[in-house]
Amino acid sequence: MSPNRLEAFSDGVIAIIITIMVLELKVPHDTSITELLKLLPVLLSYVLSFVLVSIYWINHHYLIHLVDQVDRLILWTNLNLLFWISLTPFVTAYMGENHAAPLSVAFYGLVQTACSISFLALRRAIARHHQYEAELKTLHSKKFRKNQIAWLLSALSIPLAFVSVPLALLLVAAPAVMYFLPAKAEYESKH
Amino acid sequence: MSPNRLEAFSDGVIAIIITIMVLELKVPHDTSITELLKLLPVLLSYVLSFVLVSIYWINHHYLIHLVDQVDRLILWTNLNLLFWISLTPFVTAYMGENHAAPLSVAFYGLVQTACSISFLALRRAIARHHQYEAELKTLHSKKFRKNQIAWLLSALSIPLAFVSVPLALLLVAAPAVMYFLPAKAEYESKH
Amino acid sequence: MSPNRLEAFSDGVIAIIITIMVLELKVPHDTSITELLKLLPVLLSYVLSFVLVSIYWINHHYLIHLVDQVDRLILWTNLNLLFWISLTPFVTAYMGENHAAPLSVAFYGLVQTACSISFLALRRAIARHHQYEAELKTLHSKKFRKNQIAWLLSALSIPLAFVSVPLALLLVAAPAVMYFLPAKAEYESKH
Amino acid sequence: MSPNRLEAFSDGVIAIIITIMVLELKVPHDTSITELLKLLPVLLSYVLSFVLVSIYWINHHYLIHLVDQVDRLILWTNLNLLFWISLTPFVTAYMGENHAAPLSVAFYGLVQTACSISFLALRRAIARHHQYEAELKTLHSKKFRKNQIAWLLSALSIPLAFVSVPLALLLVAAPAVMYFLPAKAEYESKH
Repeated sequence: MSPNRLEAFSDGVIAIIITIMVLELKVPHDTSITELLKLLPVLLSYVLSFVLVSIYWINHHYLIHLVDQVDRLILWTNLNLLFWISLTPFVTAYMGENHAAPLSVAFYGLVQTACSISFLALRRAIARHHQYEAELKTLHSKKFRKNQIAWLLSALSIPLAFVSVPLALLLVAAPAVMYFLPAKAEYESKH
Repeated sequence: MSPNRLEAFSDGVIAIIITIMVLELKVPHDTSITELLKLLPVLLSYVLSFVLVSIYWINHHYLIHLVDQVDRLILWTNLNLLFWISLTPFVTAYMGENHAAPLSVAFYGLVQTACSISFLALRRAIARHHQYEAELKTLHSKKFRKNQIAWLLSALSIPLAFVSVPLALLLVAAPAVMYFLPAKAEYESKH
Repeated sequence: MSPNRLEAFSDGVIAIIITIMVLELKVPHDTSITELLKLLPVLLSYVLSFVLVSIYWINHHYLIHLVDQVDRLILWTNLNLLFWISLTPFVTAYMGENHAAPLSVAFYGLVQTACSISFLALRRAIARHHQYEAELKTLHSKKFRKNQIAWLLSALSIPLAFVSVPLALLLVAAPAVMYFLPAKAEYESKH
Repeated sequence: MSPNRLEAFSDGVIAIIITIMVLELKVPHDTSITELLKLLPVLLSYVLSFVLVSIYWINHHYLIHLVDQVDRLILWTNLNLLFWISLTPFVTAYMGENHAAPLSVAFYGLVQTACSISFLALRRAIARHHQYEAELKTLHSKKFRKNQIAWLLSALSIPLAFVSVPLALLLVAAPAVMYFLPAKAEYESKH
């Protein structure tokens, strides 16, 4: 399988995931301001998930771009990543509809942690092929470190949700943004 | 990231948005004419949104076509635009199911205004790269003016919805059609 | 806009339409054979729509393949066709959930008629460019005739639904299959 | 029609199928652990279906890759395969929401059997063109045998569901994994 096809399929799945989340915004059947405001938590969790999935999409693009040949391990670690990202619409609605109750935030953090670890696993599967290319090897190790901090922070948000929901949400959002956002230079490199 | 991939992903998201709106047409469980007619407001708001999103799709295509290299600002202003367009199915159903009640029309106008401003922001991000290309610079400034009128008219529809719903709907629809529809010549140019 | 992009976008919309219809199959909450059999009408109308939309997809492919340059008329007649096809999941569920009651069958026939007329309109928009190419002109006129028979038969199914539902369904299905299925030779031609 | 377009359309449909299954995970409206645990059977059947559909996607890719020219038979056996795969979200939810009750497992096995037979039919349609290419002919016959074992095992799961649900599920899952997973060598071959 060529990396292009793998990327096109992944892009398709991610485009669907990011879009169907909006179906969880249930339309209120009266038009009072109160009813509309009740949607705010669902809307806010949608915004958070939209940003997080966007970041996965961007990082996935830069990572797959380094692949020369898709082997079985890359194929399945990629499908594994898509599986965990596909749970995002569910946990988004779960957290939104329950007004960020501790258990729902912990569950959201759990799925984010799984996404982060899956991304790390995909990077490992790809880095295996780059052991003798000094430049790529260095790139991967720098990213590994960032990725490990990211999933640890996400994982910390799980118990923290039962202590302080705002802090847990901060932990879920912060490392993802910090880590997964590629450095400015990368965007301006070719492709 | 190449403009092609950015466009393919955006096309995917827009294709999904335009299609899932139909899921908001709830199937009546008896087959009286009365029940079917009750769907009319939802159907009409679907038609309006189908046309508006189509216009965004067309304009987005012509705009992205001018991009040589996707930088970070283009990437995120594009994702921002997709975010606001993705709220269209929700506001469409909200307006349709509440028979175009003032608050629902105002909310629809609000999302359209946000789409319009987001499109303007994306154009600015792209125009930055064309400062030394006289022809493109002129094209962009002409479009800027039209785009600014468009979002102002959309924004006006928000308070107007509480005075006259039909006028507010006219304001939402008109500038979008007027502005976003590229001039005939563009369609017949290469690509 | 290149025909390729128009086709890719249309393919995306049609792929989504054909797939989301399955979401109308509501899962029964007990596992008696009786409950499962109640799904049969919905399932059958899903099969019919799956075949009809597939035929539109195939014919659309062969038609768009003849386009050299997308003009404004082709763009909008194509979007108009996609709009009517996008109503298929709704009328499929409506007919299925109401056990093919006369009004629901008539409504299904109405949407099919609109699809058929929209396809004819798209062909006209494309044929305009082929007036001086004898071979293509002949191809289009042959198809025009078939297409006109097809939408007339579909249109006849609308009043007929109130007389005999099975006959009306036959009229909806038959001309579509007859007409839209390209002749064998076409499939084996290049592309 | 070129194999590329056939594959792109099929990839689109499969990407949508694999992603909309998550919509069947209904969000609980309270955040007790008990409510969350009730989702476990639906989640588990989602995991099983995600893996099975992924395998179909991978195998479909390798199979379509052998096609030089899409004829009518390939087109329709491919659409037939997509139809049966499109029923997966329904049977997944049906089995999940009814806690793997015998009838729901039998129905799941039935759809899997239909998918497996449809894949076999698609392979036959493609193999017709390779009768004089010794290497491809051998590849196809080896796969035919595996495919026949696979659908027989799936078919056996249907009556077995009324005797032992775990054994039936094992039969549904095992041959699919065994058979459809291409041998390691294939992944590492070019494309």
